[in-house]
Amino acid sequence: MLDKLHEECGVVGVYDHPEAANLVYLGLYALQHRGQESAGIAASNHAEMRLEVGMGLVADVFDPARLLKLLGPLAIGHNRYSTAGKNELINAQPCMINYAAGSLALAHNGNLVNAQTIREELAGKGAIFQSTNDSEVIVHLMAQAKAETFVDRAAEALRQVSGAYSLVLMTKTELLAARDPYGFRPLCLGKLDGAYIVASETCVMDLIEAEFIREVEPGEIILINDQGVQSFFPFKKVATKNCVFEYIYFARPDSFLFGEYVYTARKDMGRAMAQEIPADADLVVPVPDSGVVSAMGFAEESGIPFEMGLIRNHYVGRTFIEPQSQIRDFGVKLKLNAIKKIIAGQRIAVIDDSIVRGTTCRKIVKMLRDAGAKEVHLRIASPPIRHSCFYGVDTPNEEKLIAHTHNLEETRRYLSADSLHYLSLEKMMEVLKNGEKKFCSACFDGNYPVPITDKKPDTSQIEMFGEPS
Amino acid sequence: MLDKLHEECGVVGVYDHPEAANLVYLGLYALQHRGQESAGIAASNHAEMRLEVGMGLVADVFDPARLLKLLGPLAIGHNRYSTAGKNELINAQPCMINYAAGSLALAHNGNLVNAQTIREELAGKGAIFQSTNDSEVIVHLMAQAKAETFVDRAAEALRQVSGAYSLVLMTKTELLAARDPYGFRPLCLGKLDGAYIVASETCVMDLIEAEFIREVEPGEIILINDQGVQSFFPFKKVATKNCVFEYIYFARPDSFLFGEYVYTARKDMGRAMAQEIPADADLVVPVPDSGVVSAMGFAEESGIPFEMGLIRNHYVGRTFIEPQSQIRDFGVKLKLNAIKKIIAGQRIAVIDDSIVRGTTCRKIVKMLRDAGAKEVHLRIASPPIRHSCFYGVDTPNEEKLIAHTHNLEETRRYLSADSLHYLSLEKMMEVLKNGEKKFCSACFDGNYPVPITDKKPDTSQIEMFGEPS
Amino acid sequence: MLDKLHEECGVVGVYDHPEAANLVYLGLYALQHRGQESAGIAASNHAEMRLEVGMGLVADVFDPARLLKLLGPLAIGHNRYSTAGKNELINAQPCMINYAAGSLALAHNGNLVNAQTIREELAGKGAIFQSTNDSEVIVHLMAQAKAETFVDRAAEALRQVSGAYSLVLMTKTELLAARDPYGFRPLCLGKLDGAYIVASETCVMDLIEAEFIREVEPGEIILINDQGVQSFFPFKKVATKNCVFEYIYFARPDSFLFGEYVYTARKDMGRAMAQEIPADADLVVPVPDSGVVSAMGFAEESGIPFEMGLIRNHYVGRTFIEPQSQIRDFGVKLKLNAIKKIIAGQRIAVIDDSIVRGTTCRKIVKMLRDAGAKEVHLRIASPPIRHSCFYGVDTPNEEKLIAHTHNLEETRRYLSADSLHYLSLEKMMEVLKNGEKKFCSACFDGNYPVPITDKKPDTSQIEMFGEPS
Amino acid sequence: MLDKLHEECGVVGVYDHPEAANLVYLGLYALQHRGQESAGIAASNHAEMRLEVGMGLVADVFDPARLLKLLGPLAIGHNRYSTAGKNELINAQPCMINYAAGSLALAHNGNLVNAQTIREELAGKGAIFQSTNDSEVIVHLMAQAKAETFVDRAAEALRQVSGAYSLVLMTKTELLAARDPYGFRPLCLGKLDGAYIVASETCVMDLIEAEFIREVEPGEIILINDQGVQSFFPFKKVATKNCVFEYIYFARPDSFLFGEYVYTARKDMGRAMAQEIPADADLVVPVPDSGVVSAMGFAEESGIPFEMGLIRNHYVGRTFIEPQSQIRDFGVKLKLNAIKKIIAGQRIAVIDDSIVRGTTCRKIVKMLRDAGAKEVHLRIASPPIRHSCFYGVDTPNEEKLIAHTHNLEETRRYLSADSLHYLSLEKMMEVLKNGEKKFCSACFDGNYPVPITDKKPDTSQIEMFGEPS
Repeated sequence: MLDKLHEECGVVGVYDHPEAANLVYLGLYALQHRGQESAGIAASNHAEMRLEVGMGLVADVFDPARLLKLLGPLAIGHNRYSTAGKNELINAQPCMINYAAGSLALAHNGNLVNAQTIREELAGKGAIFQSTNDSEVIVHLMAQAKAETFVDRAAEALRQVSGAYSLVLMTKTELLAARDPYGFRPLCLGKLDGAYIVASETCVMDLIEAEFIREVEPGEIILINDQGVQSFFPFKKVATKNCVFEYIYFARPDSFLFGEYVYTARKDMGRAMAQEIPADADLVVPVPDSGVVSAMGFAEESGIPFEMGLIRNHYVGRTFIEPQSQIRDFGVKLKLNAIKKIIAGQRIAVIDDSIVRGTTCRKIVKMLRDAGAKEVHLRIASPPIRHSCFYGVDTPNEEKLIAHTHNLEETRRYLSADSLHYLSLEKMMEVLKNGEKKFCSACFDGNYPVPITDKKPDTSQIEMFGEPS
Repeated sequence: MLDKLHEECGVVGVYDHPEAANLVYLGLYALQHRGQESAGIAASNHAEMRLEVGMGLVADVFDPARLLKLLGPLAIGHNRYSTAGKNELINAQPCMINYAAGSLALAHNGNLVNAQTIREELAGKGAIFQSTNDSEVIVHLMAQAKAETFVDRAAEALRQVSGAYSLVLMTKTELLAARDPYGFRPLCLGKLDGAYIVASETCVMDLIEAEFIREVEPGEIILINDQGVQSFFPFKKVATKNCVFEYIYFARPDSFLFGEYVYTARKDMGRAMAQEIPADADLVVPVPDSGVVSAMGFAEESGIPFEMGLIRNHYVGRTFIEPQSQIRDFGVKLKLNAIKKIIAGQRIAVIDDSIVRGTTCRKIVKMLRDAGAKEVHLRIASPPIRHSCFYGVDTPNEEKLIAHTHNLEETRRYLSADSLHYLSLEKMMEVLKNGEKKFCSACFDGNYPVPITDKKPDTSQIEMFGEPS
Repeated sequence: MLDKLHEECGVVGVYDHPEAANLVYLGLYALQHRGQESAGIAASNHAEMRLEVGMGLVADVFDPARLLKLLGPLAIGHNRYSTAGKNELINAQPCMINYAAGSLALAHNGNLVNAQTIREELAGKGAIFQSTNDSEVIVHLMAQAKAETFVDRAAEALRQVSGAYSLVLMTKTELLAARDPYGFRPLCLGKLDGAYIVASETCVMDLIEAEFIREVEPGEIILINDQGVQSFFPFKKVATKNCVFEYIYFARPDSFLFGEYVYTARKDMGRAMAQEIPADADLVVPVPDSGVVSAMGFAEESGIPFEMGLIRNHYVGRTFIEPQSQIRDFGVKLKLNAIKKIIAGQRIAVIDDSIVRGTTCRKIVKMLRDAGAKEVHLRIASPPIRHSCFYGVDTPNEEKLIAHTHNLEETRRYLSADSLHYLSLEKMMEVLKNGEKKFCSACFDGNYPVPITDKKPDTSQIEMFGEPS
Repeated sequence: MLDKLHEECGVVGVYDHPEAANLVYLGLYALQHRGQESAGIAASNHAEMRLEVGMGLVADVFDPARLLKLLGPLAIGHNRYSTAGKNELINAQPCMINYAAGSLALAHNGNLVNAQTIREELAGKGAIFQSTNDSEVIVHLMAQAKAETFVDRAAEALRQVSGAYSLVLMTKTELLAARDPYGFRPLCLGKLDGAYIVASETCVMDLIEAEFIREVEPGEIILINDQGVQSFFPFKKVATKNCVFEYIYFARPDSFLFGEYVYTARKDMGRAMAQEIPADADLVVPVPDSGVVSAMGFAEESGIPFEMGLIRNHYVGRTFIEPQSQIRDFGVKLKLNAIKKIIAGQRIAVIDDSIVRGTTCRKIVKMLRDAGAKEVHLRIASPPIRHSCFYGVDTPNEEKLIAHTHNLEETRRYLSADSLHYLSLEKMMEVLKNGEKKFCSACFDGNYPVPITDKKPDTSQIEMFGEPS
């Protein structure tokens, strides 16, 4: 059984830079929002490949002494999102293996939907697995591939897997970047002083001052070695299915992906909300930080004043443990506080990016009422999430999704809001300019572009959102 | 010589709650923005007092096991701001001592200006000092006081010191809160289920769901023991001198202090800027997070569109160490990134709360220009800082203050801005409603309300601001 | 290439005890002398298998919280000896894998001589390796085995490997112990309140108060499951080749193995030395701790007084780092000190268990001379080590063995001893009662009972002995 | 109240060596047996004094990076013995303070008997105490001294305290060593390449290859500064009272102190036992390590064969925590194991250095009987301990001393021994050559040479011995 079907991660690769591991470290730091569970870097000096991984934030896992162990001009890195339980370090990436053709390291963002099936087939032939993550089947398929070159082996392996992957692979001397034919997850290419950089988001390029060249195409494999950069399209062409949640929640607002800046897409969705689902309110207040940009769009379009009436404590750290207390559950109060003076007596339009379970949202409504809000109108900058994602987003089981089990009015009552409206799928796709041709909407409408081969897992995991994270 | 004259800190005290240390822990967590160098809690179960201190964030210093050592219904805590060097743990607070009248623990926010002089006198009589911080003289003066009661000893000691202090003191059975006659630093009183809470800011009350009663008055000593709450005014009455920087930068926007919400004061200053120092710009862009609220005020008042064109990476942690790199200095890029699409081709009014050295501000201007800004107009939501603070803010030496060494035009040229304007002292005080009667303006105009008795220290310290912290 | 051909380790297994992991922990603690590099425990509650490994001593790797994660009545554990370099945690054991038949954990003491060859064959068929240690080939062979039962798969796998192994294997519900046909390394079976215990040495049984049942036989596989204990002999019968170095140095003196107590064997060798290589000396002084028992035998037999003239500092810890010093190399002085009053003016017979490189021995001779010894006569309780071991002892390359590169007189001169004699191989085997029929003597005479299939590795490792460890 | 009246510690001081802190570190390492609770070093480069202390073994507290912070040619260090509870780090030494004359650091071995009284007097005058250890009064007395020079201030302070002290004191430029008039604790002086070394035991000189010059005399103060070494005798002359327990248990056998090697004294006591309290036994077996040398003396003198029938596990570490177990209490088995083959059927004379509570000794007798001993005859190499020590040894309250509450026959019965005999006080003093003129015997006969001024403390502490430590 695969414990960790669902995860959202960040990947970075650097080819031919004297400080490759340092650049990967900085890149992972810029991608920290994509995963905080573990961080790892593999580096090669052409003669030897070395791996360092650890649990926690990039800055906690790596110090200068540890980075100094990662010598060589070639490196890849990975941030992993934190899910519950199970032998975590074993699942940290990059995963590094030795096989007949030498050493190989892999960093994978996305989720395969036939990994369990392939795994069973491989195991039937005597293959051994170290981790419980789906990425390991890719290296097994490469080890068993009949093809001879690195690219061909990778293509042969990737043709056998279904689902979402944006990945970087390295041997001791070559770097390879690949994106699944649907292009669920982002991946981009950049250049820095003759070195090549691959990363999940363009904010990496900005930080290290690399030049952004272009996005890796859906279905493209890019090989970077001493021959330069080569591009391959070894897969059958299919319709693009970018993950719209990258815009809604995951990606940094300063990143450019799927042909647009996240900030722009997010703000446009806010404006669209003001058109489609206006609110009769005195103030627009975002749930920080994920609701801020769309709230700004909503406020601008509606003309309702914008106020940061909910203040976020940015010192919330991984290590904070709420003390065993008889008093009360502090919950969302540890992260957010409402400013009474702003809220009291007002009709508040609260803007959040999405609702998953609804538990946190309910607490926020209560917090606003406790601060004296006269009315609380929830406006959600995405459609209701009614279905689990199997392409790399860690949604809970459907029965835990409030929009799956409750209709709009039931949800509103559960949340104790005076009104509740979601941006419609149609409007969202319109805002994204014929978005229906380009984006996956499975979590909203259940139209899964890639069939789920594996038995649907029991995703009794801590879900990713539903908490203001 | 006193190494650490200047620091900004947070204090919390709890009287008569079964989970006093847990509440102090939560309170320190809410006050984390006031100091990240060290955290400490002293607790008493009436029979014994115990102290736990450590370097780092509250959540890193304390785990449940360590909190369990801090038993009893009485506790105080302290967060300290990070300055450079020197035996740091020795200077962490609360400081706990044993003297003839028993055990005593002290947590102090503020800075004394005659500590060095008193220290030399006490040492001449054989007193021994453990730390290099100014707070230690207070406990020495209490140990040598002739008076008999706790309050009288505290008053006798505090009458001998000059400068800024908002402090909490505890014996094994009593809690005392005191604020200097000028009231430089904030301090407030609250109540929770029969227990009393004292804290630097009201955000503590919000988090632990205590009822905010009132601010401790300048010059007031509050004693809390089994007789209830008693108030004393043992000092000569003087004009109030609240620190306006609490509004400008330090305090959390959701805190209420000096009679107003920080958020409101900050936004009003933004509006005032739009009136006094408007900008001919296409966009208002704040330097996050400290410039956001005043930028919103500026945008509203001026009608210029507001955009979050600079995105902050909130995963910047204490432990991040920039790798030894031949490449470049990443500096401010690790914290901020400009969104090209928003900035490019625009005339940007950049709003920041203040300028200290100017080095960071200069990098931000450069970042905006690199992102394609057509013009960069700096609008600063406070007057030029021309003088060091000796009352608890860790400003650098005057010669390192850009506004001390450069006039407005020189500063603008140094920062490479197209225009630069500061909110005037007069306008700021007007916004604060006769603020000149209530606020200290020493850092702007050099009018020090309390004479500096000690030799002016060589404050070759890492300054607090000047970096977007 | 296999980096870590050579290692000496300790293994423990427990079947059907409610505190299996706790017992394994105590057992590893009793076997700490067999390996200090890493420690690990795998446990199963029949439904799930969990692994915890770490670098360092058992007591440093495990605390009660970590042990609590290791639930279930079935557990195995492993201590590994510290060698230099290379991704150490990856090589720590037990190794736990998932394959078609489920989960499997392995702890291995010994060294395989055809692991590299098998590894290359497996890799050729697409197998992936995580570690660089030889034990991993065993689990690969089990994963690819055609047989169906656990024992048959294990036998099929073990029939393909050559060399030394005493190992414990577990599935989620069964425990298996196996010893190679030559029986190089020890392994014993015990019983505690209905539970079964397998361990490298009997000192484990003594500590946990288990009843020692018998040694596992060379070539025997023992399966323990809900059917009880079953014994299998699936290998071709060969002459036993116990490692005599277990008596000379490795095993604890209070352990019983290869049919005798280590203490007794060691003392008998000391007596034999007094007969074969007497010394004209005033005092017998052991190199503590490994030379103490044989020195007692030597003293008793020769009638020469016995004195602990060299005192050992038992606080030498793993973490001690000699400070970067311009002064001198402290070397052996950190561990041993000579008592001048005892040594001065005396003719000393120094008894040590063996000589490997000779560097430490030379420093001890110098230390005794500095303390005033009139004469220093070295008597070594084993024959000259002239050949590398490939069956689990981490000897250096032959060219680093002093007895390989120097004859007796040259060695004596190098060590600056007045005389030097080794116990002869013949005498040693005589003391061990027809030992030549039962013991491996390859390191003394080069007669390797199992041919070395793999290319002889470049064992540029830190050797195990040659330092008083 | 003083919590920690009793402790045994090690001190080191180095004057004028470029690597002073490194040498102190090595010295503390050689003295690790004298205290394992905490370790600390203060160093001065003449301009600044810096202190580093931590809980645990020297090698765990200090790594090269931390030693590098301790610059300068002058340093002192301290190891402290582990007692239970109470804010330990606060009590770690050296203690470093600032007073009128500058900085001062102190490391103290011994115990003062009027510290509480002085402390109360000082507190009455307003003095503040940081720690609960008695050493702090010495620095207070120095701070309040009227004299002007360092030596005179030290003498003035030390004349006011009673009890045991061997101490090193340093200013930024001078080193001072002092020993109380009775000379309870050892202290010696050495020289290394022009630098001077002061240490508790001579084993420090051996390790760092310093030349041992002489012991510091009882009542002597030695000042070392740029004028060289000066000696002062500022105290009234009294009869010497060396602590005989340094020979019996504390000091390393390779150290020379009180005019003799510990090894020699210990062995002579063993011989004397064979004369005074022989045993009708087949074997002499020591309780390792503290009973080994006297057992050798006993065996030699009696002619009874000597065997190491009890084997000690030297990997017992500070961090080992016995797992929460329903099974049994492992207790002494974690440290010792009996070899059945040696013990079974024999009449064993067991030699231990002393008996305190008797609980451990009782377990050892049981362990020997479980191993098959026919008879167990206890022979103790010191007289019965009937009284608490107040001069630096952490004995428990009298009522916990088995020899205080039980007569010889009752003790024997409690221990389940076939016979029990202690070396008599008279015989011990005879062995020590008119020892009664030179040694304190208070713990045996209650003749306290220095009256205990303080209220006798409630020493409900974990006692030091009584466990084979």
